[in-house]
Amino acid sequence: MTLTTELLDASPVQVQYDLTKIVACIESCFDCSRACLICADACLAEDDATDHLLACIRLNQDCADICLTTGRLLSRQYAIDPALLQAMVQTCVSVTKLCAQECESHSHHRHCELCAAACRACEDACRVLLAEVV
Amino acid sequence: MTLTTELLDASPVQVQYDLTKIVACIESCFDCSRACLICADACLAEDDATDHLLACIRLNQDCADICLTTGRLLSRQYAIDPALLQAMVQTCVSVTKLCAQECESHSHHRHCELCAAACRACEDACRVLLAEVV
Amino acid sequence: MTLTTELLDASPVQVQYDLTKIVACIESCFDCSRACLICADACLAEDDATDHLLACIRLNQDCADICLTTGRLLSRQYAIDPALLQAMVQTCVSVTKLCAQECESHSHHRHCELCAAACRACEDACRVLLAEVV
Amino acid sequence: MTLTTELLDASPVQVQYDLTKIVACIESCFDCSRACLICADACLAEDDATDHLLACIRLNQDCADICLTTGRLLSRQYAIDPALLQAMVQTCVSVTKLCAQECESHSHHRHCELCAAACRACEDACRVLLAEVV
Repeated sequence: MTLTTELLDASPVQVQYDLTKIVACIESCFDCSRACLICADACLAEDDATDHLLACIRLNQDCADICLTTGRLLSRQYAIDPALLQAMVQTCVSVTKLCAQECESHSHHRHCELCAAACRACEDACRVLLAEVV
Repeated sequence: MTLTTELLDASPVQVQYDLTKIVACIESCFDCSRACLICADACLAEDDATDHLLACIRLNQDCADICLTTGRLLSRQYAIDPALLQAMVQTCVSVTKLCAQECESHSHHRHCELCAAACRACEDACRVLLAEVV
Repeated sequence: MTLTTELLDASPVQVQYDLTKIVACIESCFDCSRACLICADACLAEDDATDHLLACIRLNQDCADICLTTGRLLSRQYAIDPALLQAMVQTCVSVTKLCAQECESHSHHRHCELCAAACRACEDACRVLLAEVV
Repeated sequence: MTLTTELLDASPVQVQYDLTKIVACIESCFDCSRACLICADACLAEDDATDHLLACIRLNQDCADICLTTGRLLSRQYAIDPALLQAMVQTCVSVTKLCAQECESHSHHRHCELCAAACRACEDACRVLLAEVV
């Protein structure tokens, strides 16, 4: 049992959705944002940065910000608004999908390959949760 | 001319939407997030906090996070993805509308009244920008 | 009277420091973070990005993050810890000073010149507040 | 080997400090911020919220913000400024120590007990890294 699970379990707030899916989504949001931050930093230092990686840096930053905000939102379970949760998680699906595609297009950089996998994992966890919410 | 306008104007990145609307949206996102942070703090200290204001605190925090992420996204104009911008700004419309309604429902607290106005201003600026993007 | 002043004034929390100085610090933190985000984006798109502006982009990102966190901290006045406030505002002085110096070193880019001014303004507001806290 | 380690390892940026210590610090910063967000939400919903837990909620929010900013800073290894890194990680030590103490003072709430442990782990990882930087 992860710390996130234990904490949500210890809260007086009744989690309204499947706990396993909520936890998977929160944790993959934080993991993905961290991967994007490191990938953006690595891209900045690549020799071919100006030519191919600028759009990737930009998208990495969007993805890091949106994943963190989604993770923060889901960490708060008290009086959560279902429609708002849905809009935010859907936006997270959009950005992780875009960022995964971008990173996959230059996966000869190992950090982009790893970051794309983190984005895909987060996209999946978000979709699984969304299926529950809708 | 505000600093935000001057900065975007000085950037080599060609802003793809109406500059005035982009700037209004960025600035109202930052203003609204600040208002929500202060309102949450004020609500926490109100005598009637446990009864009426807990949902408001929660929504204030969501609104502060989402507005900041929206403002950060819009501050980056390089290779901005129109569909992602739309999803994020639309989510910002949702949260500012919810938070304004919540704050208006206990506007006898002056900080809630002020915060509701900041949320409405941000919601409006987002809608104006969205009309341009769609 | 700005919205930030009105909101803090309407809060049941007694602000422990000079209200004008707190407000100036909060507002310049938010303004500076916005300037840094736009400057980083502009730097990314400059033709000479790989050679001179990578360190600037990095520092802009640090400065945006630290200023926002400082602004968030100061927006919460309830049970504020003086030593923590001091450590955070001092860190904000460090990053705004560094970022101003970096931006000034290539102020032929108008966005760097503007960003440097925003950093200096934030550094000043932080120092003024610190003098009050110590 | 964690994803964070693999990513930093795949970056063209030469990490200037012990990789294991950097990774431990980044990961515990993200873990601690997540714990604080959930603990704040749980505290908000406790029956004794008004009496004992308001200061805890406030500190949880500071801790979540500072840990995230520290984790973001450390995720960027390109042209990292040692003095700035030191100031930020030191501030993170201050807030995690304060938040741990606060949570320990009402550890009859299981979420506070768990959050205190996450804060202590982050404080330790920060101290270990600081010993390397100074």
